[in-house]
Amino acid sequence: MDATKECSPLVRHSPLLTDRFASIRALSRELAAPLSDADATIQSMPDASPAKWHLAHTTWFFETFVLRDHVSGYRLFDENWPFLFNSYYEAEGPRHARPQRGMLSRPSLDEVLAYRAHVDAHVERVLDRPELAALIELGLNHEQQHQELLLTDIKHAFSLNPLAPAYGAFPDSGILPAGAMEWEEHRGGRCRIGHDGSSFAFDNEGPAHDVLIQPFALARRLVTCGEWAAFIADGGYRNPALWLSDGWAWVNAQGITAPLYWREDGMFTLAGMQQLERSAPVAHVSFYEADAFATWAGHRLPTEFEWEVAARNHDPLGGMQLDNAVGVHPRGSTGLYGDCWQWTRSAYLPYPRFRPAAGAVGEYNGKFMSAQCVLKGASCATPRGHSRSTYRNFFPPEKRWQCTGVRLAKDL
Amino acid sequence: MDATKECSPLVRHSPLLTDRFASIRALSRELAAPLSDADATIQSMPDASPAKWHLAHTTWFFETFVLRDHVSGYRLFDENWPFLFNSYYEAEGPRHARPQRGMLSRPSLDEVLAYRAHVDAHVERVLDRPELAALIELGLNHEQQHQELLLTDIKHAFSLNPLAPAYGAFPDSGILPAGAMEWEEHRGGRCRIGHDGSSFAFDNEGPAHDVLIQPFALARRLVTCGEWAAFIADGGYRNPALWLSDGWAWVNAQGITAPLYWREDGMFTLAGMQQLERSAPVAHVSFYEADAFATWAGHRLPTEFEWEVAARNHDPLGGMQLDNAVGVHPRGSTGLYGDCWQWTRSAYLPYPRFRPAAGAVGEYNGKFMSAQCVLKGASCATPRGHSRSTYRNFFPPEKRWQCTGVRLAKDL
Amino acid sequence: MDATKECSPLVRHSPLLTDRFASIRALSRELAAPLSDADATIQSMPDASPAKWHLAHTTWFFETFVLRDHVSGYRLFDENWPFLFNSYYEAEGPRHARPQRGMLSRPSLDEVLAYRAHVDAHVERVLDRPELAALIELGLNHEQQHQELLLTDIKHAFSLNPLAPAYGAFPDSGILPAGAMEWEEHRGGRCRIGHDGSSFAFDNEGPAHDVLIQPFALARRLVTCGEWAAFIADGGYRNPALWLSDGWAWVNAQGITAPLYWREDGMFTLAGMQQLERSAPVAHVSFYEADAFATWAGHRLPTEFEWEVAARNHDPLGGMQLDNAVGVHPRGSTGLYGDCWQWTRSAYLPYPRFRPAAGAVGEYNGKFMSAQCVLKGASCATPRGHSRSTYRNFFPPEKRWQCTGVRLAKDL
Amino acid sequence: MDATKECSPLVRHSPLLTDRFASIRALSRELAAPLSDADATIQSMPDASPAKWHLAHTTWFFETFVLRDHVSGYRLFDENWPFLFNSYYEAEGPRHARPQRGMLSRPSLDEVLAYRAHVDAHVERVLDRPELAALIELGLNHEQQHQELLLTDIKHAFSLNPLAPAYGAFPDSGILPAGAMEWEEHRGGRCRIGHDGSSFAFDNEGPAHDVLIQPFALARRLVTCGEWAAFIADGGYRNPALWLSDGWAWVNAQGITAPLYWREDGMFTLAGMQQLERSAPVAHVSFYEADAFATWAGHRLPTEFEWEVAARNHDPLGGMQLDNAVGVHPRGSTGLYGDCWQWTRSAYLPYPRFRPAAGAVGEYNGKFMSAQCVLKGASCATPRGHSRSTYRNFFPPEKRWQCTGVRLAKDL
Repeated sequence: MDATKECSPLVRHSPLLTDRFASIRALSRELAAPLSDADATIQSMPDASPAKWHLAHTTWFFETFVLRDHVSGYRLFDENWPFLFNSYYEAEGPRHARPQRGMLSRPSLDEVLAYRAHVDAHVERVLDRPELAALIELGLNHEQQHQELLLTDIKHAFSLNPLAPAYGAFPDSGILPAGAMEWEEHRGGRCRIGHDGSSFAFDNEGPAHDVLIQPFALARRLVTCGEWAAFIADGGYRNPALWLSDGWAWVNAQGITAPLYWREDGMFTLAGMQQLERSAPVAHVSFYEADAFATWAGHRLPTEFEWEVAARNHDPLGGMQLDNAVGVHPRGSTGLYGDCWQWTRSAYLPYPRFRPAAGAVGEYNGKFMSAQCVLKGASCATPRGHSRSTYRNFFPPEKRWQCTGVRLAKDL
Repeated sequence: MDATKECSPLVRHSPLLTDRFASIRALSRELAAPLSDADATIQSMPDASPAKWHLAHTTWFFETFVLRDHVSGYRLFDENWPFLFNSYYEAEGPRHARPQRGMLSRPSLDEVLAYRAHVDAHVERVLDRPELAALIELGLNHEQQHQELLLTDIKHAFSLNPLAPAYGAFPDSGILPAGAMEWEEHRGGRCRIGHDGSSFAFDNEGPAHDVLIQPFALARRLVTCGEWAAFIADGGYRNPALWLSDGWAWVNAQGITAPLYWREDGMFTLAGMQQLERSAPVAHVSFYEADAFATWAGHRLPTEFEWEVAARNHDPLGGMQLDNAVGVHPRGSTGLYGDCWQWTRSAYLPYPRFRPAAGAVGEYNGKFMSAQCVLKGASCATPRGHSRSTYRNFFPPEKRWQCTGVRLAKDL
Repeated sequence: MDATKECSPLVRHSPLLTDRFASIRALSRELAAPLSDADATIQSMPDASPAKWHLAHTTWFFETFVLRDHVSGYRLFDENWPFLFNSYYEAEGPRHARPQRGMLSRPSLDEVLAYRAHVDAHVERVLDRPELAALIELGLNHEQQHQELLLTDIKHAFSLNPLAPAYGAFPDSGILPAGAMEWEEHRGGRCRIGHDGSSFAFDNEGPAHDVLIQPFALARRLVTCGEWAAFIADGGYRNPALWLSDGWAWVNAQGITAPLYWREDGMFTLAGMQQLERSAPVAHVSFYEADAFATWAGHRLPTEFEWEVAARNHDPLGGMQLDNAVGVHPRGSTGLYGDCWQWTRSAYLPYPRFRPAAGAVGEYNGKFMSAQCVLKGASCATPRGHSRSTYRNFFPPEKRWQCTGVRLAKDL
Repeated sequence: MDATKECSPLVRHSPLLTDRFASIRALSRELAAPLSDADATIQSMPDASPAKWHLAHTTWFFETFVLRDHVSGYRLFDENWPFLFNSYYEAEGPRHARPQRGMLSRPSLDEVLAYRAHVDAHVERVLDRPELAALIELGLNHEQQHQELLLTDIKHAFSLNPLAPAYGAFPDSGILPAGAMEWEEHRGGRCRIGHDGSSFAFDNEGPAHDVLIQPFALARRLVTCGEWAAFIADGGYRNPALWLSDGWAWVNAQGITAPLYWREDGMFTLAGMQQLERSAPVAHVSFYEADAFATWAGHRLPTEFEWEVAARNHDPLGGMQLDNAVGVHPRGSTGLYGDCWQWTRSAYLPYPRFRPAAGAVGEYNGKFMSAQCVLKGASCATPRGHSRSTYRNFFPPEKRWQCTGVRLAKDL
């Protein structure tokens, strides 16, 4: 075990870690560049966090678990801030109530950026300490997750402003090839699932294990806005036979009639109001909507295992993903990645023999393993390189503010 | 397919169906015997239903799907009642709001019993029609489920009466053998799961299919009240490290500090207030509590597949289950069944290639396949003979008013 | 002061009190006669109470404040019942939560009637004790208030039953003379307000004092259903200019479009569904609706002082009021009393130098003196003889389940 | 009537209006000076508004009712902004939902200040038009109200920041003379109430009319923090006998145990955390608390009429009121004004023959005349000169974020 670790890429290539640290930390700053102090302060709902908070919380993660715990003599940038910027780590003590994050007009965005610079300077000095590499790598992957959240959270906040401000020239998605749905077929059988080996992965991706899968096919492209419009036109949101019971209750209680950002005059995007593009992938739908659509279409959602098996043939760096703060760009052919995270019918549960890590970082994934759904793939807001076939994203079934779409599956 | 059906026990032994119809319908009446019209009318929460409603709804099921749909010339007992006694069948049209069921002081309990007699008389005339056997069998299994709900619902209602009235001499549970926890070990491997063959099963128990299971052990008995008291004394309800995130939020929002019916001076039961018996199985705990307890104990909950595989060696007719209205009696050695339904860590999801039945009866199980947990076994309120190894009971993770307990599992 | 009390009618005419005690207690039983045990058990909302509870609570009042406090050797009928049947008397200790009153399927209606008989027998023995006359008279007036509540509460409960059961042949209101609105003019000036003298009155009706009133006119009849229909047809419920700010928020939050029991096919009454009668007084409207209607009509609501001054010329025993359990009958010419309580624009506040009585009975009225509106008159459900010109009924401005209507006023 | 208007001070002294316009509009800017864009954006609760919103809304008032309605050729600064900055004027059409005001990170504080400059420049050109004087005066008084709200709202927002930021060196209140409570006695009788004459007043202050008042006394000073601490120590918050029924429900539902900004280690103020000063007036208490305290003290709250009659002998410019953005300063002897608004036991209702103004500005006061309490006086955050004896401030009985305190009264 130790031997394996010693020759892991993370440890051998500390220059790589140095580069990754610099570029990932820089991307967060760039993502915040179009935002004013006020933009970075507001919180649109308890699920979302202010941009400033994301910038500070990711920094708190490094300050706490790397500098405070492992660098002797390090003094906190501000001893009152851990209370503010701890997210949910119970082991780290009490913390500011999540729904109150939008009250933090102080510290200012500039002060938070100074906090980032301070912590960066101290972390940079220990990037070559092999025993810290795994923690730092975890911190970087954690930061990439918050980069995506920063974008989806500010999109939600701006959507509530009647002025519909634009974050920037940020395309929501690519345009899919026109034409009928095509299917990629798979034999199934006994398949290996989960992460194995020395590269970075979150604890919830393991242990690797075998599962039995029956023959299935996966759609070669995502469901489009045009197809969704047909679902609506056919009364999809008014026909209880298509919906799970919880979904039907949700549709009626919330008065849902379309994907989250659809409006009479188009669609709200990070680039402001846009025309609805029929051949673009539909995004910002809940699991309930995804499931109802699949039922309407005569198909079903894939399991996370089916998706993972199929994904082995696809490039995780392909498709529309986040490259930098200014925008996103498609790369390579359209595969399973990019544009939208894809709802699966799998509940987010522990793999056999899963054990969370010890200590506070062990609170990272395991404690959310109830009542959530697994999503696979990557979205236009996912930093390219962050996702992989074994990656397990997860959200509650009614949430829509993430860039979530639909890839159909069927039995063979 | 037809051939298989023709030689199924249900069709061959129509006398058996006649007996079963008579005895199961009679048991419902007996369960209501200790109740006044007022007792049978009240509804303690939206999750629960009045006893009178259970008696009428199970009758509506036969009247609608057997008599109305298949018996020419049948006239409804009262044409206004289907609106009142449809539970959730969207295909059957609009219906009385669930939280308002407790407003139905009319019809009276006597009128509902007259309704039962009327429908029974008409169904008895068609019990020998083979093409109705499957529907009638479904109706009887449906009624058995409501018999259990009738008991758990009236228990909840009576628990809210400061006079703590007793339903009857109804023991909550048996007494477990003292002594340390013992384990039954299983090799796992490729195992057959789900119902196959000609005997009755709900649609959610199939299709049968294989799964891979790793070696595990299952506790030979349920967790006891004494063990739960130790969990409480050790601060189990105050230690976030033991809880799933949703569970911790639930514990704090609801101020949970003990199982549902525990009080300072004992435990509320169907027999009124009783002393807490340390060697009795703990009951009326949520999935969150079950999971936290398992973590505290250094073990885990079983998956539904592990439980089902282990259950093949146990008699589904054994243990403390419901035999008649007056009480329950243990039968045979303590196996996996009886006393309490047992929370598993499995989400309630469709088996591969699951398809709900066509028509209204297809709304029976499939539409609840989100955000619920599978429970296995049988409780002291489950009619003996109703459950089996493939049976999949399901409830949301925070519910406690069912007779739900804990059987631990561990990896080998 | 003592001398005055000694020659008060209450004390001099104890035979009268004996008769009143018998007839008022009997009326409560008669009001319950059409109800089953189940009817008498259900509670339709936290504001309402079960009929059984009214019967028991009024009895608890006599048992507690007369028998327990003043009759040596009296033993409680059941020592657990005071917890159940105390309404809100903090000085009497903890009590059953109001929204849980509908859970009391036990004690049964028969047991409550036995409780009434037991307490009646004991009170009858002390009806001739002069020092108890005032308390007993208070208890009788208290019981009359609950008689009205019993009727309005069961009406609300039955209204939630899709079968729309009828309580009995109970007319909601009389028919008003057709024709234009006529006005009774008053000079105003320095006027005496409040109760003075030796007859019974609630503490909130005093002390008597003078107020200044400007010249005004009061409508000679109540607003009718036909006039209300015109208000609706004119968009009354959709025009914010007509509404108080709180009222407009209430209309929109609750989706209010008509008086409480109006339905597409008529009006729900204690006699079941009835045709809407255009010349009948409109009832079951909130203060907000009454105020908006008055604004729409170009007039206003009266103050409680204006109404009281005008009422001196009217017979408090006249109009449609409650005579017995079977129904109500108009008596004499239509004056200011009967059919509906009438919203005033006066807030329910203490009169100058008001002091609540000492002890638990002092909690009767004073502690509700915030955020409620005064109503004057009497309704078809008010026991005839209970109301008078100084009577101050009070309810929150959004409540509608009482028999509340509108009498217009205007400045001269 | 016209003649009266022509010789009113407002019209005669347009230079005065010019000065007032300049200084009042400047004060708003100064009040915002200590705030960042982010500070000025956040909204701590639906009752409160962002500082930026106050700055823009008061400007919208002038732009809409003066420039748009009366200056030909005026073009809106931004045609999308009226939707954002209308508060509650239904006649002005739909508007941004109040609880969403905190989402307006755009426009920025700088843009709002530019809006102010633009509108000021245009209004300054018409300050000499006599027919606009009344509207402009209304706009200035309206702005003064929002100056007070800006301070109380930012105080509330900052109180939710765990860093407890200081707005500035802003004393909450003065120090009262030590020693026993002294009383100012009044004979009462027939007294003139309400505003009469040509100086500015809000419509709710009239018409002037006579009321009858009984002899009373008013405390010469406000209740102090030290007296409040004694109330707490005596169990004031736990004794239901002291509370109105609604107040007792509120105390228990909200877990109230002290005035709003009291904490274990002192008191949160606009100057940050401060020591509790026993001889300072208690502030930030609700009407319910004020009433309970008065009951505990054996006294009562004054009526608005008593307060107004007594106030004729006191200088409305005296006491601790707002002079400029940097702080407040006591001026003259302690009278009835300054430090805190004072709860009265009077409901906020229309005076006899009150008629709201026509048009949108008529929505200013009348539509709030239900379920609110009248407050008299002026607080440390009230611009000096804004209040007067006839001034009727009003808030719902449970609100505490205004600077509200207690002056006792008693009967003579």
